[in-house]
Amino acid sequence: MRGLDVCLSPNLIDLHEIEGRVIVVVDILRATSCMTAGIGSGITEIKPFADLDSCVKMKEHGYLIAGERNGQKVEGFDLGNSPFDYMDPANQGCKIAVTTTNGTQAIEKSLAGEHIIIGSFLNISAVANWIRKKDMDVLIVCAGWKGKVNLEDSLFAGALTDMIMPEFSPVCDAPLVALHSYLGMKDNLLEHVLDSSHARRLRRLNISEDIEYCLRFDEFTVVPELVGGALRMSAD
Amino acid sequence: MRGLDVCLSPNLIDLHEIEGRVIVVVDILRATSCMTAGIGSGITEIKPFADLDSCVKMKEHGYLIAGERNGQKVEGFDLGNSPFDYMDPANQGCKIAVTTTNGTQAIEKSLAGEHIIIGSFLNISAVANWIRKKDMDVLIVCAGWKGKVNLEDSLFAGALTDMIMPEFSPVCDAPLVALHSYLGMKDNLLEHVLDSSHARRLRRLNISEDIEYCLRFDEFTVVPELVGGALRMSAD
Repeated sequence: MRGLDVCLSPNLIDLHEIEGRVIVVVDILRATSCMTAGIGSGITEIKPFADLDSCVKMKEHGYLIAGERNGQKVEGFDLGNSPFDYMDPANQGCKIAVTTTNGTQAIEKSLAGEHIIIGSFLNISAVANWIRKKDMDVLIVCAGWKGKVNLEDSLFAGALTDMIMPEFSPVCDAPLVALHSYLGMKDNLLEHVLDSSHARRLRRLNISEDIEYCLRFDEFTVVPELVGGALRMSAD
Repeated sequence: MRGLDVCLSPNLIDLHEIEGRVIVVVDILRATSCMTAGIGSGITEIKPFADLDSCVKMKEHGYLIAGERNGQKVEGFDLGNSPFDYMDPANQGCKIAVTTTNGTQAIEKSLAGEHIIIGSFLNISAVANWIRKKDMDVLIVCAGWKGKVNLEDSLFAGALTDMIMPEFSPVCDAPLVALHSYLGMKDNLLEHVLDSSHARRLRRLNISEDIEYCLRFDEFTVVPELVGGALRMSAD
Protein backbone atom coordinates (compact mmCIF):
# COMPACT_ATOMS: atom_id res chain seq x y z
CA MET A 1 0.00 0.00 0.00
CA ARG A 2 1.19 3.52 -0.76
CA GLY A 3 2.44 5.64 2.12
CA LEU A 4 0.91 8.90 3.34
CA ASP A 5 2.95 11.38 5.35
CA VAL A 6 2.13 14.82 6.75
CA CYS A 7 4.71 17.48 7.62
CA LEU A 8 2.90 19.83 10.02
CA SER A 9 5.51 22.61 9.76
CA PRO A 10 8.10 23.45 7.07
CA ASN A 11 10.65 23.57 9.91
CA LEU A 12 10.27 19.80 10.28
CA ILE A 13 10.71 19.01 6.60
CA ASP A 14 14.23 17.60 6.95
CA LEU A 15 12.72 14.72 8.97
CA HIS A 16 10.40 13.70 6.14
CA GLU A 17 11.18 11.90 2.90
CA ILE A 18 10.58 14.13 -0.11
CA GLU A 19 12.30 12.47 -3.07
CA GLY A 20 10.21 10.24 -5.29
CA ARG A 21 6.99 11.45 -3.71
CA VAL A 22 4.01 13.55 -4.67
CA ILE A 23 4.23 16.67 -2.49
CA VAL A 24 0.95 18.46 -1.77
CA VAL A 25 1.76 21.98 -0.57
CA VAL A 26 -0.94 23.65 1.47
CA ASP A 27 -1.31 27.20 2.79
CA ILE A 28 -5.06 27.60 3.19
CA LEU A 29 -4.93 31.24 4.39
CA ARG A 30 -4.26 32.12 1.68
CA ALA A 31 -1.45 31.30 -0.77
CA THR A 32 -2.53 27.91 -2.10
CA SER A 33 -6.21 28.91 -2.06
CA CYS A 34 -5.25 31.89 -4.27
CA MET A 35 -3.20 29.65 -6.58
CA THR A 36 -6.11 27.26 -6.98
CA ALA A 37 -8.59 30.08 -7.55
CA GLY A 38 -6.22 31.76 -10.03
CA ILE A 39 -5.42 28.71 -12.16
CA GLY A 40 -9.09 27.73 -11.93
CA SER A 41 -10.13 31.17 -13.19
CA GLY A 42 -7.92 31.37 -16.26
CA ILE A 43 -4.54 32.61 -14.96
CA THR A 44 -2.17 30.73 -17.28
CA GLU A 45 0.87 30.55 -15.02
CA ILE A 46 1.88 31.39 -11.45
CA LYS A 47 5.56 31.62 -10.54
CA PRO A 48 6.22 31.39 -6.79
CA PHE A 49 9.21 33.19 -5.25
CA ALA A 50 10.39 32.98 -1.65
CA ASP A 51 11.80 36.53 -1.68
CA LEU A 52 10.33 39.89 -2.68
CA ASP A 53 13.18 41.09 -4.94
CA SER A 54 13.08 38.11 -7.32
CA CYS A 55 9.33 38.52 -7.53
CA VAL A 56 9.49 42.24 -8.38
CA LYS A 57 11.91 41.57 -11.23
CA MET A 58 9.27 39.48 -13.03
CA LYS A 59 7.35 42.68 -13.73
CA GLU A 60 9.80 43.36 -16.57
CA HIS A 61 8.92 39.99 -18.09
CA GLY A 62 5.24 40.78 -18.38
CA TYR A 63 4.05 39.20 -15.11
CA LEU A 64 1.58 40.73 -12.73
CA ILE A 65 3.20 40.70 -9.30
CA ALA A 66 1.41 39.51 -6.19
CA GLY A 67 2.98 40.02 -2.78
CA GLU A 68 1.97 39.50 0.81
CA ARG A 69 3.88 39.88 4.05
CA ASN A 70 2.23 39.40 7.46
CA GLY A 71 -1.21 39.20 5.90
CA GLN A 72 -1.00 42.48 3.98
CA LYS A 73 -0.47 43.37 0.32
CA VAL A 74 3.05 44.63 -0.36
CA GLU A 75 3.11 48.27 -1.48
CA GLY A 76 3.48 48.72 -5.22
CA PHE A 77 2.38 45.17 -6.06
CA ASP A 78 -0.48 44.51 -8.52
CA LEU A 79 -2.26 41.91 -6.39
CA GLY A 80 -2.47 41.08 -2.72
CA ASN A 81 -3.18 37.65 -1.29
CA SER A 82 -6.95 37.44 -1.73
CA PRO A 83 -8.49 34.68 -3.87
CA PHE A 84 -10.83 37.35 -5.26
CA ASP A 85 -7.82 39.24 -6.73
CA TYR A 86 -6.86 36.03 -8.51
CA MET A 87 -10.40 35.45 -9.78
CA ASP A 88 -10.78 38.96 -11.23
CA PRO A 89 -11.89 38.48 -14.89
CA ALA A 90 -9.55 41.35 -15.84
CA ASN A 91 -6.60 39.06 -15.00
CA GLN A 92 -7.70 36.11 -17.16
CA GLY A 93 -4.94 34.98 -19.50
CA CYS A 94 -2.29 36.76 -17.40
CA LYS A 95 0.79 35.35 -15.72
CA ILE A 96 1.46 36.07 -12.04
CA ALA A 97 4.69 36.12 -10.01
CA VAL A 98 3.96 35.71 -6.31
CA THR A 99 5.66 35.80 -2.93
CA THR A 100 3.95 35.24 0.43
CA THR A 101 4.98 34.90 4.09
CA ASN A 102 4.62 31.14 4.35
CA GLY A 103 3.21 29.45 1.23
CA THR A 104 5.94 30.19 -1.29
CA GLN A 105 8.61 29.27 1.27
CA ALA A 106 6.93 25.89 1.76
CA ILE A 107 7.02 25.32 -2.02
CA GLU A 108 10.73 26.17 -2.06
CA LYS A 109 11.41 23.54 0.63
CA SER A 110 9.49 20.91 -1.35
CA LEU A 111 11.42 21.20 -4.61
CA ALA A 112 13.06 17.76 -4.29
CA GLY A 113 9.67 16.09 -4.72
CA GLU A 114 8.82 14.07 -7.83
CA HIS A 115 5.59 16.03 -8.34
CA ILE A 116 4.71 19.24 -6.51
CA ILE A 117 1.03 20.09 -6.56
CA ILE A 118 -1.07 22.75 -4.87
CA GLY A 119 -3.78 21.75 -2.40
CA SER A 120 -6.59 23.77 -0.84
CA PHE A 121 -10.14 23.10 0.26
CA LEU A 122 -11.17 24.78 -3.00
CA ASN A 123 -9.79 21.82 -5.02
CA ILE A 124 -9.49 19.05 -2.41
CA SER A 125 -11.46 16.38 -4.30
CA ALA A 126 -9.51 17.09 -7.48
CA VAL A 127 -6.26 16.70 -5.50
CA ALA A 128 -7.50 13.42 -3.96
CA ASN A 129 -8.35 12.06 -7.41
CA TRP A 130 -5.06 13.24 -8.87
CA ILE A 131 -2.91 11.47 -6.27
CA ARG A 132 -5.06 8.32 -6.40
CA LYS A 133 -4.05 7.97 -10.06
CA LYS A 134 -0.31 8.15 -9.33
CA ASP A 135 1.50 5.06 -8.11
CA MET A 136 3.48 7.03 -5.57
CA ASP A 137 3.79 7.85 -1.88
CA VAL A 138 2.40 11.22 -0.80
CA LEU A 139 3.68 13.92 1.55
CA ILE A 140 1.39 16.80 2.54
CA VAL A 141 3.49 19.84 3.50
CA CYS A 142 1.68 22.37 5.70
CA ALA A 143 3.01 25.92 5.33
CA GLY A 144 2.07 26.83 8.91
CA TRP A 145 2.69 30.32 10.31
CA LYS A 146 6.35 31.33 10.41
CA GLY A 147 7.35 27.78 11.20
CA LYS A 148 4.63 27.09 13.77
CA VAL A 149 1.93 24.49 13.29
CA ASN A 150 -1.34 26.16 12.31
CA LEU A 151 -4.93 25.01 12.45
CA GLU A 152 -6.24 25.48 8.92
CA ASP A 153 -3.36 23.71 7.18
CA SER A 154 -3.50 20.84 9.68
CA LEU A 155 -7.25 20.56 9.06
CA PHE A 156 -6.69 20.36 5.31
CA ALA A 157 -4.10 17.61 5.88
CA GLY A 158 -6.68 15.80 8.01
CA ALA A 159 -9.45 16.24 5.45
CA LEU A 160 -7.27 14.94 2.61
CA THR A 161 -6.13 12.03 4.81
CA ASP A 162 -9.81 11.26 5.47
CA MET A 163 -10.50 11.17 1.72
CA ILE A 164 -7.60 8.93 0.64
CA MET A 165 -6.95 6.85 3.78
CA PRO A 166 -8.47 3.62 2.50
CA GLU A 167 -5.90 3.54 -0.31
CA PHE A 168 -2.94 4.98 1.63
CA SER A 169 -1.32 3.97 4.90
CA PRO A 170 0.13 6.58 7.33
CA VAL A 171 3.93 6.29 7.59
CA CYS A 172 4.08 8.23 10.87
CA ASP A 173 1.68 9.70 13.44
CA ALA A 174 1.20 13.19 11.99
CA PRO A 175 -1.53 12.05 9.53
CA LEU A 176 -3.45 10.54 12.49
CA VAL A 177 -3.15 13.71 14.60
CA ALA A 178 -4.35 15.80 11.63
CA LEU A 179 -7.13 13.34 10.73
CA HIS A 180 -8.70 13.22 14.17
CA SER A 181 -8.34 16.95 14.63
CA TYR A 182 -10.27 17.38 11.36
CA LEU A 183 -12.91 14.79 12.24
CA GLY A 184 -13.52 16.61 15.52
CA MET A 185 -13.97 20.01 13.88
CA LYS A 186 -15.41 19.27 10.46
CA ASP A 187 -18.99 20.13 11.35
CA ASN A 188 -17.95 23.65 12.39
CA LEU A 189 -14.86 24.20 10.30
CA LEU A 190 -15.39 27.93 9.74
CA GLU A 191 -16.15 28.62 13.40
CA HIS A 192 -13.04 26.76 14.57
CA VAL A 193 -10.77 28.40 12.02
CA LEU A 194 -12.15 31.87 12.83
CA ASP A 195 -11.12 31.15 16.41
CA SER A 196 -7.55 30.19 15.40
CA SER A 197 -4.61 32.52 15.87
CA HIS A 198 -3.92 33.19 12.19
CA ALA A 199 -7.56 33.92 11.41
CA ARG A 200 -7.69 36.28 14.39
CA ARG A 201 -4.69 38.09 12.92
CA LEU A 202 -6.37 38.23 9.51
CA ARG A 203 -9.70 39.37 10.91
CA ARG A 204 -7.98 42.45 12.22
CA LEU A 205 -7.21 43.11 8.54
CA ASN A 206 -10.88 42.81 7.62
CA ILE A 207 -10.71 39.82 5.37
CA SER A 208 -13.25 37.49 6.85
CA GLU A 209 -14.79 37.14 3.38
CA ASP A 210 -11.50 35.62 2.19
CA ILE A 211 -11.43 33.23 5.14
CA GLU A 212 -14.97 32.06 4.52
CA TYR A 213 -14.19 31.49 0.82
CA CYS A 214 -10.92 29.62 1.51
CA LEU A 215 -12.83 27.04 3.58
CA ARG A 216 -15.26 26.11 0.81
CA PHE A 217 -14.85 22.62 -0.62
CA ASP A 218 -14.48 21.94 -4.34
CA GLU A 219 -15.10 25.30 -5.98
CA PHE A 220 -12.58 24.21 -8.64
CA THR A 221 -11.53 20.98 -10.32
CA VAL A 222 -8.02 22.11 -11.30
CA VAL A 223 -4.80 20.81 -9.77
CA PRO A 224 -1.97 23.34 -10.18
CA GLU A 225 1.37 21.57 -10.64
CA LEU A 226 4.84 23.07 -10.42
CA VAL A 227 6.78 22.32 -13.60
CA GLY A 228 9.94 24.22 -14.54
CA GLY A 229 9.44 26.72 -11.73
CA ALA A 230 5.89 27.67 -12.68
CA LEU A 231 2.46 26.46 -11.56
CA ARG A 232 0.14 25.51 -14.39
CA MET A 233 -2.99 23.42 -14.66
CA SER A 234 -1.90 19.78 -14.51
CA ALA A 235 -2.78 17.89 -17.65
CA ASP A 236 -3.19 14.62 -15.67
CA MET B 1 -5.82 35.17 31.24
CA ARG B 2 -2.74 32.98 31.32
CA GLY B 3 -1.41 31.63 28.03
CA LEU B 4 -1.18 27.98 27.04
CA ASP B 5 1.21 26.84 24.33
CA VAL B 6 2.06 23.41 22.94
CA CYS B 7 5.30 22.52 21.17
CA LEU B 8 4.48 19.37 19.18
CA SER B 9 8.13 18.49 18.46
CA PRO B 10 11.39 19.44 20.23
CA ASN B 11 12.68 20.47 16.79
CA LEU B 12 10.22 23.38 16.86
CA ILE B 13 11.17 24.60 20.32
CA ASP B 14 13.08 27.66 19.12
CA LEU B 15 9.75 29.07 17.86
CA HIS B 16 8.16 28.90 21.30
CA GLU B 17 8.69 31.12 24.33
CA ILE B 18 10.29 29.18 27.20
CA GLU B 19 11.56 31.76 29.68
CA GLY B 20 9.31 32.68 32.57
CA ARG B 21 6.99 29.76 31.86
CA VAL B 22 6.04 26.48 33.44
CA ILE B 23 7.31 23.81 31.03
CA VAL B 24 5.49 20.46 31.10
CA VAL B 25 7.72 17.88 29.44
CA VAL B 26 5.93 14.82 28.11
CA ASP B 27 7.18 11.55 26.65
CA ILE B 28 4.33 9.14 27.29
CA LEU B 29 6.07 6.08 25.80
CA ARG B 30 7.84 5.93 28.15
CA ALA B 31 10.31 8.36 29.75
CA THR B 32 7.96 10.72 31.60
CA SER B 33 5.61 7.87 32.52
CA CYS B 34 8.61 6.11 34.10
CA MET B 35 9.66 9.28 35.94
CA THR B 36 6.16 9.73 37.34
CA ALA B 37 5.91 6.08 38.34
CA GLY B 38 9.39 6.19 39.92
CA ILE B 39 8.95 9.35 41.97
CA GLY B 40 5.45 8.15 42.86
CA SER B 41 6.84 4.82 44.09
CA GLY B 42 9.57 6.12 46.36
CA ILE B 43 12.53 6.82 44.07
CA THR B 44 14.03 9.89 45.79
CA GLU B 45 15.71 11.50 42.80
CA ILE B 46 15.97 11.02 39.03
CA LYS B 47 18.73 12.78 37.10
CA PRO B 48 18.11 12.98 33.35
CA PHE B 49 21.01 12.96 30.88
CA ALA B 50 20.81 13.48 27.13
CA ASP B 51 23.88 11.29 26.48
CA LEU B 52 24.84 7.78 27.57
CA ASP B 53 28.37 8.53 28.83
CA SER B 54 27.34 11.16 31.38
CA CYS B 55 24.65 8.78 32.60
CA VAL B 56 27.04 5.85 33.06
CA LYS B 57 29.40 7.98 35.18
CA MET B 58 26.67 8.44 37.79
CA LYS B 59 27.08 4.78 38.74
CA GLU B 60 30.20 5.80 40.72
CA HIS B 61 28.09 8.26 42.69
CA GLY B 62 25.67 5.66 43.94
CA TYR B 63 22.98 6.02 41.29
CA LEU B 64 21.19 3.19 39.57
CA ILE B 65 21.50 3.79 35.83
CA ALA B 66 18.56 3.54 33.46
CA GLY B 67 19.11 3.68 29.71
CA GLU B 68 17.05 3.24 26.59
CA ARG B 69 17.86 3.69 22.93
CA ASN B 70 15.33 2.89 20.19
CA GLY B 71 12.94 1.32 22.67
CA GLN B 72 15.45 -1.14 24.17
CA LYS B 73 17.36 -1.26 27.43
CA VAL B 74 21.02 -0.33 26.99
CA GLU B 75 23.37 -3.24 27.77
CA GLY B 76 24.94 -3.10 31.20
CA PHE B 77 22.36 -0.66 32.60
CA ASP B 78 20.43 -1.44 35.79
CA LEU B 79 17.02 -0.44 34.48
CA GLY B 80 15.38 -0.17 31.08
CA ASN B 81 12.56 2.17 30.21
CA SER B 82 9.59 0.32 31.71
CA PRO B 83 7.46 1.97 34.41
CA PHE B 84 7.46 -1.42 36.17
CA ASP B 85 11.27 -1.21 36.56
CA TYR B 86 10.77 2.15 38.28
CA MET B 87 8.01 0.81 40.54
CA ASP B 88 10.04 -2.19 41.74
CA PRO B 89 9.92 -2.08 45.57
CA ALA B 90 13.60 -3.13 45.60
CA ASN B 91 14.45 0.32 44.17
CA GLN B 92 12.59 2.37 46.79
CA GLY B 93 14.79 5.03 48.34
CA CYS B 94 17.27 4.81 45.44
CA LYS B 95 18.46 7.53 43.08
CA ILE B 96 18.35 6.95 39.32
CA ALA B 97 20.37 8.49 36.48
CA VAL B 98 18.54 8.09 33.17
CA THR B 99 18.99 8.66 29.45
CA THR B 100 16.39 7.90 26.76
CA THR B 101 15.99 8.43 23.01
CA ASN B 102 13.58 11.35 23.17
CA GLY B 103 12.41 12.27 26.67
CA THR B 104 15.67 13.33 28.27
CA GLN B 105 16.58 15.35 25.16
CA ALA B 106 13.28 17.21 25.43
CA ILE B 107 14.09 18.06 29.06
CA GLU B 108 17.50 19.38 27.99
CA LYS B 109 15.86 21.71 25.46
CA SER B 110 13.46 23.03 28.10
CA LEU B 111 16.05 24.12 30.65
CA ALA B 112 15.39 27.86 30.18
CA GLY B 113 11.91 27.44 31.70
CA GLU B 114 11.01 28.94 35.09
CA HIS B 115 9.67 25.58 36.30
CA ILE B 116 10.21 22.28 34.52
CA ILE B 117 7.78 19.55 35.53
CA ILE B 118 7.08 16.04 34.27
CA GLY B 119 3.72 15.20 32.75
CA SER B 120 2.17 11.85 31.89
CA PHE B 121 -1.32 10.37 31.89
CA LEU B 122 -0.30 8.71 35.15
CA ASN B 123 -0.26 12.09 36.94
CA ILE B 124 -2.26 14.33 34.58
CA SER B 125 -4.76 15.66 37.17
CA ALA B 126 -1.94 16.41 39.61
CA VAL B 127 -0.13 18.33 36.85
CA ALA B 128 -3.30 20.25 36.00
CA ASN B 129 -3.78 21.22 39.64
CA TRP B 130 -0.12 22.16 40.02
CA ILE B 131 -0.11 24.58 37.09
CA ARG B 132 -3.48 26.07 38.06
CA LYS B 133 -1.86 27.21 41.31
CA LYS B 134 1.01 29.04 39.56
CA ASP B 135 0.37 32.50 38.14
CA MET B 136 2.34 31.71 35.00
CA ASP B 137 1.99 30.87 31.30
CA VAL B 138 2.43 27.21 30.38
CA LEU B 139 4.24 25.45 27.54
CA ILE B 140 3.72 21.72 27.00
CA VAL B 141 6.78 20.22 25.25
CA CYS B 142 6.11 16.95 23.44
CA ALA B 143 9.19 14.75 23.12
CA GLY B 144 7.95 13.17 19.88
CA TRP B 145 9.93 10.50 18.08
CA LYS B 146 13.37 11.61 16.85
CA GLY B 147 12.00 15.06 16.13
CA LYS B 148 8.77 13.93 14.50
CA VAL B 149 5.34 14.67 15.93
CA ASN B 150 3.92 11.58 17.64
CA LEU B 151 0.44 10.56 18.61
CA GLU B 152 0.64 9.76 22.31
CA ASP B 153 2.43 12.97 23.33
CA SER B 154 0.06 15.07 21.20
CA LEU B 155 -2.87 13.31 22.88
CA PHE B 156 -1.50 14.10 26.32
CA ALA B 157 -1.11 17.76 25.28
CA GLY B 158 -4.73 17.68 24.11
CA ALA B 159 -5.96 16.03 27.31
CA LEU B 160 -4.16 18.56 29.53
CA THR B 161 -5.46 21.40 27.34
CA ASP B 162 -8.96 19.98 27.79
CA MET B 163 -8.51 20.01 31.59
CA ILE B 164 -7.14 23.54 31.99
CA MET B 165 -8.62 25.37 28.98
CA PRO B 166 -11.23 27.34 30.90
CA GLU B 167 -8.47 29.05 32.87
CA PHE B 168 -5.88 29.30 30.08
CA SER B 169 -6.06 30.74 26.59
CA PRO B 170 -4.17 29.13 23.66
CA VAL B 171 -1.40 31.42 22.37
CA CYS B 172 -1.14 29.61 19.03
CA ASP B 173 -2.95 26.86 17.11
CA ALA B 174 -1.03 23.82 18.33
CA PRO B 175 -3.13 23.47 21.54
CA LEU B 176 -6.29 23.44 19.39
CA VAL B 177 -4.92 20.79 17.02
CA ALA B 178 -3.90 18.64 20.00
CA LEU B 179 -7.17 19.25 21.86
CA HIS B 180 -9.45 18.20 19.01
CA SER B 181 -7.26 15.27 18.15
CA TYR B 182 -7.65 14.12 21.79
CA LEU B 183 -11.39 14.76 21.91
CA GLY B 184 -11.82 12.64 18.78
CA MET B 185 -9.85 9.70 20.19
CA LYS B 186 -10.43 9.83 23.94
CA ASP B 187 -13.04 7.09 24.01
CA ASN B 188 -10.59 4.63 22.44
CA LEU B 189 -7.26 6.04 23.53
CA LEU B 190 -5.50 2.69 23.89
CA GLU B 191 -6.74 1.37 20.55
CA HIS B 192 -5.63 4.52 18.71
CA VAL B 193 -2.23 4.60 20.38
CA LEU B 194 -1.66 0.90 19.70
CA ASP B 195 -2.23 1.74 16.05
CA SER B 196 0.35 4.57 16.08
CA SER B 197 3.81 4.20 14.62
CA HIS B 198 5.75 4.31 17.90
CA ALA B 199 3.50 1.80 19.60
CA ARG B 200 3.84 -0.51 16.61
CA ARG B 201 7.62 -0.26 17.00
CA LEU B 202 7.33 -0.99 20.73
CA ARG B 203 4.91 -3.90 20.25
CA ARG B 204 7.59 -5.65 18.26
CA LEU B 205 9.60 -5.44 21.49
CA ASN B 206 6.78 -7.11 23.44
CA ILE B 207 5.93 -4.32 25.79
CA SER B 208 2.22 -3.91 25.27
CA GLU B 209 1.78 -4.15 29.06
CA ASP B 210 3.89 -0.98 29.38
CA ILE B 211 1.82 0.79 26.74
CA GLU B 212 -1.45 -0.10 28.42
CA TYR B 213 -0.11 1.11 31.78
CA CYS B 214 1.26 4.41 30.37
CA LEU B 215 -2.23 5.34 29.13
CA ARG B 216 -3.88 5.04 32.55
CA PHE B 217 -5.06 8.29 34.10
CA ASP B 218 -4.08 9.38 37.60
CA GLU B 219 -2.30 6.38 39.06
CA PHE B 220 -0.16 8.89 40.99
CA THR B 221 -0.62 12.30 42.56
CA VAL B 222 3.04 13.35 42.42
CA VAL B 223 4.47 16.06 40.17
CA PRO B 224 8.19 15.52 39.55
CA GLU B 225 9.98 18.86 39.19
CA LEU B 226 13.50 19.49 37.90
CA VAL B 227 15.51 21.45 40.46
CA GLY B 228 19.31 21.66 40.31
CA GLY B 229 19.51 19.04 37.57
CA ALA B 230 17.45 16.41 39.40
CA LEU B 231 13.79 15.46 39.38
CA ARG B 232 12.22 15.25 42.80
CA MET B 233 8.69 15.29 44.11
CA SER B 234 7.51 18.91 43.97
CA ALA B 235 6.64 20.30 47.38
CA ASP B 236 3.99 22.62 45.87
